[in-house]
Amino acid sequence: MTSPQICRIGESRRWSDIVIYRGIARWVEVASDLSAPVAIQIQQVLAQIDATLIQIGSNRESLLQIIIHLADPADTAELNRQWDQWVPLGHAPIRACIQSGLGNGCKVEMIIEAAAA
Amino acid sequence: MTSPQICRIGESRRWSDIVIYRGIARWVEVASDLSAPVAIQIQQVLAQIDATLIQIGSNRESLLQIIIHLADPADTAELNRQWDQWVPLGHAPIRACIQSGLGNGCKVEMIIEAAAA
Amino acid sequence: MTSPQICRIGESRRWSDIVIYRGIARWVEVASDLSAPVAIQIQQVLAQIDATLIQIGSNRESLLQIIIHLADPADTAELNRQWDQWVPLGHAPIRACIQSGLGNGCKVEMIIEAAAA
Repeated sequence: MTSPQICRIGESRRWSDIVIYRGIARWVEVASDLSAPVAIQIQQVLAQIDATLIQIGSNRESLLQIIIHLADPADTAELNRQWDQWVPLGHAPIRACIQSGLGNGCKVEMIIEAAAA
Repeated sequence: MTSPQICRIGESRRWSDIVIYRGIARWVEVASDLSAPVAIQIQQVLAQIDATLIQIGSNRESLLQIIIHLADPADTAELNRQWDQWVPLGHAPIRACIQSGLGNGCKVEMIIEAAAA
Repeated sequence: MTSPQICRIGESRRWSDIVIYRGIARWVEVASDLSAPVAIQIQQVLAQIDATLIQIGSNRESLLQIIIHLADPADTAELNRQWDQWVPLGHAPIRACIQSGLGNGCKVEMIIEAAAA
């Protein structure tokens, strides 16, 4: 078996922004502005996912899995409102939405896997 | 490298029930009856995993990973009681069990990966 | 397509310690001493990841993803202090750090994926 390469993009000291291995890209998104209200944070996270998909030559229809962590379960309705307009009809990933503690004003964090060539 | 297809099963507006890609099926289970007590919810989730495995032509011995979210850590003993009888001896997946906030009466949520042809 | 084998290592009744499938190893680490203070628990978990990587013939530079669950968000600074010295410069995995309930004195739990031949 050949040993495929690990592709790391946007690496900082603490983590890589994206890791691609054997046709799957993995990454984590939190809003660029953690002082923004939750509706803006959700909007930013979904837009950042779109930007990452473009960056890796993929698209929303290649999403495999999104695990959503919400700091406040009361934000689920707003999340679903934006999500339902964003997720591609007929090509939705699997999804779990869980309430967890998130630091530094962060209201929503998403862990994403998408197919990538 | 050929580009493998993404197989999505049971798609609703908000998510796919199962996504299969490059030999791995991923899905999320919560109990079909979220008003049931925790012992029933656990029983339902494990039975639903079995049903999904049959649906995709796989079986318990192909489970790779199960991440378990429990709303109440006091339910761990009941989870383990049922789990230990369910998990296939000699073919157990990796497992993490974490306490998280789950909405709508949900007591247990599992995120599953299994090998699928 | 040939059907690759699932390799399970260190299996107990309840879970496997490591599952390797299609070039990816998955495992979960908690400190061997759950009565230790958080700094020791973090140190143990990182050392245990190193030991597992050696066991499977891999190394830190093959880490793809680490999801960190902390019981107390106040421990994030200590986690980052140790993490930043441990994570391989230029080869960092993606990382999410989330506050969740962990039982039995457990202060930190990590879910790991690494490339494995």
